[in-house]
Amino acid sequence: AEDGIRDRSPSRGLGDVYKRQEFYYTNIRMNFLEKINNRFLRTNSHLCIGLDPDPQKIPEPFGKTPDQIFHFLEEVIEATSEYALALKPNLAYFEALGLEGIRLFEKVLKTIPEDIPVIADAKRGDIGPSSKKYAYALLEQFGCDAITVNPYMGYDSIKPFLNYKDKGIFILCLTSNSGANDFQVPNLYLQVAEKVREWNVHSNLGLVVGATHPERVLAIREKSGPMPFLIPGIGAQGGALEKTLEAVQDGTRVPCLINASRSILYPEKSLVFNEFKETQEFSSKDCISSSRHAAHELHQEIRNCLKN
Amino acid sequence: AEDGIRDRSPSRGLGDVYKRQEFYYTNIRMNFLEKINNRFLRTNSHLCIGLDPDPQKIPEPFGKTPDQIFHFLEEVIEATSEYALALKPNLAYFEALGLEGIRLFEKVLKTIPEDIPVIADAKRGDIGPSSKKYAYALLEQFGCDAITVNPYMGYDSIKPFLNYKDKGIFILCLTSNSGANDFQVPNLYLQVAEKVREWNVHSNLGLVVGATHPERVLAIREKSGPMPFLIPGIGAQGGALEKTLEAVQDGTRVPCLINASRSILYPEKSLVFNEFKETQEFSSKDCISSSRHAAHELHQEIRNCLKN
Repeated sequence: AEDGIRDRSPSRGLGDVYKRQEFYYTNIRMNFLEKINNRFLRTNSHLCIGLDPDPQKIPEPFGKTPDQIFHFLEEVIEATSEYALALKPNLAYFEALGLEGIRLFEKVLKTIPEDIPVIADAKRGDIGPSSKKYAYALLEQFGCDAITVNPYMGYDSIKPFLNYKDKGIFILCLTSNSGANDFQVPNLYLQVAEKVREWNVHSNLGLVVGATHPERVLAIREKSGPMPFLIPGIGAQGGALEKTLEAVQDGTRVPCLINASRSILYPEKSLVFNEFKETQEFSSKDCISSSRHAAHELHQEIRNCLKN
Repeated sequence: AEDGIRDRSPSRGLGDVYKRQEFYYTNIRMNFLEKINNRFLRTNSHLCIGLDPDPQKIPEPFGKTPDQIFHFLEEVIEATSEYALALKPNLAYFEALGLEGIRLFEKVLKTIPEDIPVIADAKRGDIGPSSKKYAYALLEQFGCDAITVNPYMGYDSIKPFLNYKDKGIFILCLTSNSGANDFQVPNLYLQVAEKVREWNVHSNLGLVVGATHPERVLAIREKSGPMPFLIPGIGAQGGALEKTLEAVQDGTRVPCLINASRSILYPEKSLVFNEFKETQEFSSKDCISSSRHAAHELHQEIRNCLKN
């Protein structure tokens, strides 16, 4: 990403993160797995925070214009990043804001410190020449560290992504939604896991594995071998955290990423601050505090599961 | 698309097409299938022209800046649209140009006359709430008439799209690339065809069916029943036109769409103008003529196959 958006970003030195300059001066160019491992050593966190900017859910004190949404995301990132192994902006939410949304996406990427891995949740996939363009768009043009990809169209649709050896490519395997039952089970998700292991010649592939059926997570792990799992479905989608973590803790040193988006960006405030009445008005500061609190809680919950 | 990009477009009165005003004054609000049928009655064409703006392929006389690419696309659309049943911009190529590419996408949509159906080739698909955002982005925000969607994540990932009753939703079934063999065959593509028939309660679904294996096209048709097929793989990908057309000519009045992108945008000039020497320089006008020629030829080839 020599010329990518993120490499033009100013250092902001948020929280406990390295300043971006250190990366330049020490001339470290880490690949995605190194970047994830490095971040894991410093945060001890498995939490991936999803960035789903939905104007209908942005807390009222912030407002709904693109600038106000940017301000909200900037504050959430600053307040929660010490618990974040990675950040995962969801392209759907940015695209829904039209041209302004893509501008917002660019601006958000620029504010994310260089040492926090950014996973573009884009679920792209097309015939080879088109996939090449998608890979270029998200991994070079926008300079993201990783991307989610749909396997339906097979190897040549994945190849342009996996050719980015320094990037992380998360391929949909078993998703956390009810529709996973239509085609993925009983066989397809295991076929995908098997093929992805075969395709992983540059050690830069991972799988998206929903947390809704821990026994299936185990079955996938057996097919795929050690590789990063991006695991949605814990928060708003109600997956089983403990059993899922058990399934992927197989003694390998590849950290899994437990994703939460809405439950951190838009936490149920009454659950977070019991002392507040439901009708009480929240300031923008309160909202950010509640997001930070939600991130901290989930981080702790994950740590506790891993200790047992 | 009350507030969509395309409804703010100025009328341009290209070629033989209706002026956009007529659509307002007669107050016709057609759904996608009516729009396709209406266009078919006036053009007698099955040709869908793919818009894949690749800076490395845009003819040299035009140049490679976003404005120059826009000029090229505008001219190609104007020159070829009388043979076009629909136009299919491929989002991958626009996204690869970054923020400027999305601006270009908007500008191109504005130049397309209202009566030419526009299919956003986006191959999107995500859990329900995210798919809802993608559907909103492409069918409302950008105001496209139809979209291509990936079925891997099942029903709830498709539902937000199919809820747009007036839009066309083309679901990937059997794609034209070599990777189609990894997961789609021997069973998945037929399962998809069967499910899509079941999901087609608003009669707004179609399938993407590659032309590379005509006997499979027939098998899909048996499962899906009559619905529009968007058929890539004829031009650059080398599919079998005649047998494919045979397979979908089942007496139903739903026109299939034969897509060609690169072979029309960037035709081999020596094949088009035999009288030119290979080394001779082409003007921008020559390039547009050769695109028009390629569109006309393929349109005729399709007509001839249908007569047999």
